[in-house]
Amino acid sequence: MPAPLITLTTDFGLSDHYVGVMKAVILSICPPARIVDISHGVGAYEIAEGAFTLAQSYSYFPRGSVHVVVVDPGVGTARRPILAQAAGHYFIAPDNGVLSMVYARKKHKVRAIVNDRYYLRPVSNTFHGRDIFAPAAAHLAAGTAPARFGRIIDDYLRLDFDRPVRTGRRTWTGAVLKVDRFGNMITNFSLEEFPELGQRAFELAAGPQRIQVLARNYAECAPGEPFLIAGSAGYYEISVGQAPAAKLLGCSTGAPLELTLL
Amino acid sequence: MPAPLITLTTDFGLSDHYVGVMKAVILSICPPARIVDISHGVGAYEIAEGAFTLAQSYSYFPRGSVHVVVVDPGVGTARRPILAQAAGHYFIAPDNGVLSMVYARKKHKVRAIVNDRYYLRPVSNTFHGRDIFAPAAAHLAAGTAPARFGRIIDDYLRLDFDRPVRTGRRTWTGAVLKVDRFGNMITNFSLEEFPELGQRAFELAAGPQRIQVLARNYAECAPGEPFLIAGSAGYYEISVGQAPAAKLLGCSTGAPLELTLL
Amino acid sequence: MPAPLITLTTDFGLSDHYVGVMKAVILSICPPARIVDISHGVGAYEIAEGAFTLAQSYSYFPRGSVHVVVVDPGVGTARRPILAQAAGHYFIAPDNGVLSMVYARKKHKVRAIVNDRYYLRPVSNTFHGRDIFAPAAAHLAAGTAPARFGRIIDDYLRLDFDRPVRTGRRTWTGAVLKVDRFGNMITNFSLEEFPELGQRAFELAAGPQRIQVLARNYAECAPGEPFLIAGSAGYYEISVGQAPAAKLLGCSTGAPLELTLL
Repeated sequence: MPAPLITLTTDFGLSDHYVGVMKAVILSICPPARIVDISHGVGAYEIAEGAFTLAQSYSYFPRGSVHVVVVDPGVGTARRPILAQAAGHYFIAPDNGVLSMVYARKKHKVRAIVNDRYYLRPVSNTFHGRDIFAPAAAHLAAGTAPARFGRIIDDYLRLDFDRPVRTGRRTWTGAVLKVDRFGNMITNFSLEEFPELGQRAFELAAGPQRIQVLARNYAECAPGEPFLIAGSAGYYEISVGQAPAAKLLGCSTGAPLELTLL
Repeated sequence: MPAPLITLTTDFGLSDHYVGVMKAVILSICPPARIVDISHGVGAYEIAEGAFTLAQSYSYFPRGSVHVVVVDPGVGTARRPILAQAAGHYFIAPDNGVLSMVYARKKHKVRAIVNDRYYLRPVSNTFHGRDIFAPAAAHLAAGTAPARFGRIIDDYLRLDFDRPVRTGRRTWTGAVLKVDRFGNMITNFSLEEFPELGQRAFELAAGPQRIQVLARNYAECAPGEPFLIAGSAGYYEISVGQAPAAKLLGCSTGAPLELTLL
Repeated sequence: MPAPLITLTTDFGLSDHYVGVMKAVILSICPPARIVDISHGVGAYEIAEGAFTLAQSYSYFPRGSVHVVVVDPGVGTARRPILAQAAGHYFIAPDNGVLSMVYARKKHKVRAIVNDRYYLRPVSNTFHGRDIFAPAAAHLAAGTAPARFGRIIDDYLRLDFDRPVRTGRRTWTGAVLKVDRFGNMITNFSLEEFPELGQRAFELAAGPQRIQVLARNYAECAPGEPFLIAGSAGYYEISVGQAPAAKLLGCSTGAPLELTLL
């Protein structure tokens, strides 16, 4: 049997001790666990960005993996810790919508984690990554049955940030889901829902720019010219050849976008 | 027998090859070793911050772990490499005080590492992480007895940066131990030594602010209002709800704090 | 048999999902693989910096390791993915010169990766790290013979950025190969080719400064005074005691340097 895999996605950054401590707790409870960082660079408190980062990654891991997501502005309040199951994967997270993109695409089952025998005690009011989420993931990876953590609930929080809103017969208002390291702006217009952008004329308003070109690769367009490209994440992305599009267009995560089919 | 665990805490950052090379050296000497990053984002040359990061983390790892700490402004000078043992853990570091918070809390034994058969040769004058600390950790993890590295010493360096100084009957001068990714300011007033802050009135001067509120969680206070909170690190922390307190108060690591019990 | 080692060197940064997804793909194809990050902080599109980072690291890993390098401004164009073998190590990278420093020092053999049965399909035009490089590395680590990926080629791209150019009897023009986290400027004047700097007078012009001192360690020179030091990377480096030399001298990666032997 291969060693259980636990992935971590947080907004903790890598300058503090927080991520190292979570790994320590996991390895103390489940010594054979293999821990893989998805990212700890989610913007502080940015639930939608955490949801996107997880949704882009988890399905590439082997089934049976346990994915821990800690983007948790409500730590210490009454928001619940949850354990979700979907597509053969497990998810441990706060119930604040950070799993919404999993819920939207896959059949799923959600439990509230209430059995405090799986907590690290005393539980602090500021670091549930260490005291609740890491221990729960480790116990799960070590073989504890999901039902032991708590009952199935159906009033978990679902957010709907990854779908553009139709505003007219041929117009939609969308948003920037994420700006990546290269300044590429990942939009929430998915390739699946907007397949026509490859075949017909369109205009996408982003900041001060109106983009009308869909490129096949980054090298195809002239330097400085923004273009749309079918991104690897399953969404259209706004790019500028070897330059940071988001900076040139003055847009950041959450910036509004207006699509018009011409 | 589980694979030996080696943790790394450095100020090397993650943009250079330094951390990767240390891991390569470890895995070449001790192939089954499992390496866990605590943090490589300690401020450059910030010994106190390195000491704090280590002290917050090591005890959560399984006993027998080897903790390598390289924050080493004196690399290439006569400062000694040391191997310390405390609380069932091993520590490999330069003798510059970076283990002071371990010494302060636990019975310990310190050796100078002088046996150069455990060095990677030739030893450079600028990268002892690769040439001395990583090889020593790997040989230790591979089963070399601590006594083989060198004799026990008692003139190792201890620094005393984590305790406030009493300045009056009801006043203390402390300092910011660390500003974390969220801008929370971790003070050196420990929950253990100042348990009364929960029960009686106090005033903590930090930058231009005088803080009089102890909150139970981050969500309890109004936006923009700084408050004190019992932090997960065992110290009081200064926070502002979903905003970076250190930036708002203009304080960074080392900034002075004045506590008055009212 | 120890688990196969795969290292990653990219310009993806750590804020996005890209690195986590590459690891997921590797672990799905080759579950026992052990993945080690060399660095994901190579400057965006900086091929020379990627080449340097790899060259500084790979030889410290055990023979048989598979090194994946993804600094790939030409992703989605006709540039080829390649598999190189040198010094008992394997390299998977785009054919854009990022392996040049390996080629320059070691006997090597290069194959074009053309067998798309080892690709993750469909192959995107923007993320070959996920779709081509990670799967190739994982299949190689899992035992697929190099010849299965494609034929040996000899028209692969070699760049020559790591050697100073002689401009007179006693003068050379070199460059800054890399600025590290501490602001040390790693030059392309190697210890091997310029051994005389330790014995005879020299002047190195860097930005507005003329450096004439070779120090033995960082602590030897007065604060604020730039000096040359024999770096751990095998090149001379320009440093300033406990201060960022590159910032003080206004130099960044690629900045020109003029050496005169006096």
